[in-house]
Amino acid sequence: MKSLEPLLNLQHLCVNEKANDSSVESTKKTESFTTPLSLDEVEVILGYEFKNKQLLEEAFTDASLGEDFSNERLEYVGDSVLNLLFTKDQYFEYPDLSPGVLTRLRAANVDSDKLARVAVKHGFHRFLRHKKPLLEDQIRQFSEEIRRYPLHSNGLVDVPKALADLVESIIGAVFIDSNSSIDIVWKVFKDLLEPIIRRETLRIHPVTQLYEMCQKKNLKVKFVDLWKESTTFDVFVDDQFVGRGSCRLKKEIAHNRAAKDALDNIVRILDKKDT
Amino acid sequence: MKSLEPLLNLQHLCVNEKANDSSVESTKKTESFTTPLSLDEVEVILGYEFKNKQLLEEAFTDASLGEDFSNERLEYVGDSVLNLLFTKDQYFEYPDLSPGVLTRLRAANVDSDKLARVAVKHGFHRFLRHKKPLLEDQIRQFSEEIRRYPLHSNGLVDVPKALADLVESIIGAVFIDSNSSIDIVWKVFKDLLEPIIRRETLRIHPVTQLYEMCQKKNLKVKFVDLWKESTTFDVFVDDQFVGRGSCRLKKEIAHNRAAKDALDNIVRILDKKDT
Repeated sequence: MKSLEPLLNLQHLCVNEKANDSSVESTKKTESFTTPLSLDEVEVILGYEFKNKQLLEEAFTDASLGEDFSNERLEYVGDSVLNLLFTKDQYFEYPDLSPGVLTRLRAANVDSDKLARVAVKHGFHRFLRHKKPLLEDQIRQFSEEIRRYPLHSNGLVDVPKALADLVESIIGAVFIDSNSSIDIVWKVFKDLLEPIIRRETLRIHPVTQLYEMCQKKNLKVKFVDLWKESTTFDVFVDDQFVGRGSCRLKKEIAHNRAAKDALDNIVRILDKKDT
Repeated sequence: MKSLEPLLNLQHLCVNEKANDSSVESTKKTESFTTPLSLDEVEVILGYEFKNKQLLEEAFTDASLGEDFSNERLEYVGDSVLNLLFTKDQYFEYPDLSPGVLTRLRAANVDSDKLARVAVKHGFHRFLRHKKPLLEDQIRQFSEEIRRYPLHSNGLVDVPKALADLVESIIGAVFIDSNSSIDIVWKVFKDLLEPIIRRETLRIHPVTQLYEMCQKKNLKVKFVDLWKESTTFDVFVDDQFVGRGSCRLKKEIAHNRAAKDALDNIVRILDKKDT
């Protein structure tokens, strides 16, 4: 078994560590995280004025706060509204696409990676009332990490689920407040949800992509699980070491990062083989 | 190990066989299955007149027909519309329910068991154009079997998926035709979807129910997989034989039927133990 380490681009190895760098900007953010602001400002960001302000308050109340109400029910509603809105939009935009591709396209736009970005981009997280001691650090780290992946990380970064839930809750709140109008919800959120992932910008999950690529070229893929020992996964293609991925918190992300690293390297390896 | 066979109520053992009984009624149905009828009649059943008749035609065209269009895309849309309609309805009907219970309540109303019944009840299947040689037999069998379970079988009968897909397609067609109005779709389908499963009529899946019941009473559950040998599963509770389920076509259904049989019997077994 020949090691190909010199060829490797191990960019997915130290993401968490790097994200811990403190900067003036992130210190500023910390302050605003801890001070809940007036929800009037949210109405300005949305360009929508609530008839029932309690819905707005509910949307920004995390269950961890232990109050009588939380945004869990609105999140449930918002998830369903958002699914239909993308279903409808893409049905008309892509008259030739099969349900299989439409499902993947919709999933990329409504999953937690995509929605948590929306929260960060428009600063909704600053208004969230919660009692999750680790959340602010997670948000800061997430905000740093997604800079490398402008649209979607496809499983390469750790997403603070509470942020995605928050966006769904706001959508649910506008839906209920607007007398269940999907048209009003779309008008309010269409631009806020940009950049929307379209057919041209849809990327395959790195693990799927690696398997598909190797199957085409008749190469054998093997992941070696070293997560317990060193929070990493190694990838071998036809018994050659081609990539490594690491994540201290989540095994699945380490696995995905290993696949991405292998994909980044494998093209060069195959090129070298051919020459 | 003591056999409790004399106590058992093996009603789930021969369901498929029984359903093969031919009767005058089912022979009549076969004739209508094979002759696609005019779609005007569908508009009468729906109480809705399509502006774009092509959508109606698309909704009743199965992919197996191999035409340029099929109901797959409309089914995809209808599924999403139906999900939102139940989400909305139940959000208002049950202001105190958690998302967990709401999810189970919605799932029971939008799954293939529930929707295939809607197709059969209103005779939509008679208009479906398809080239699935086994479908008509499956529908006849399904129509027989669901008589025992007026609301939902919870995994005990084999559902012809094409029927559930058909209902979703019709919903998708009305949604698109009505300029994406969820209000019109609900007005058209609310009564057609009855009996809607409500909090009071929601039943737990038999496998879940068996495990939950036995966990409470500190009893050990064991399923014995005899599907390859005899298309059956046996269930033992604390090493006592308590139930058997069979299904020639689908292993999962045999498994579910075994759990249901065990549940039907276990009460009597426990009563006997106590006395």
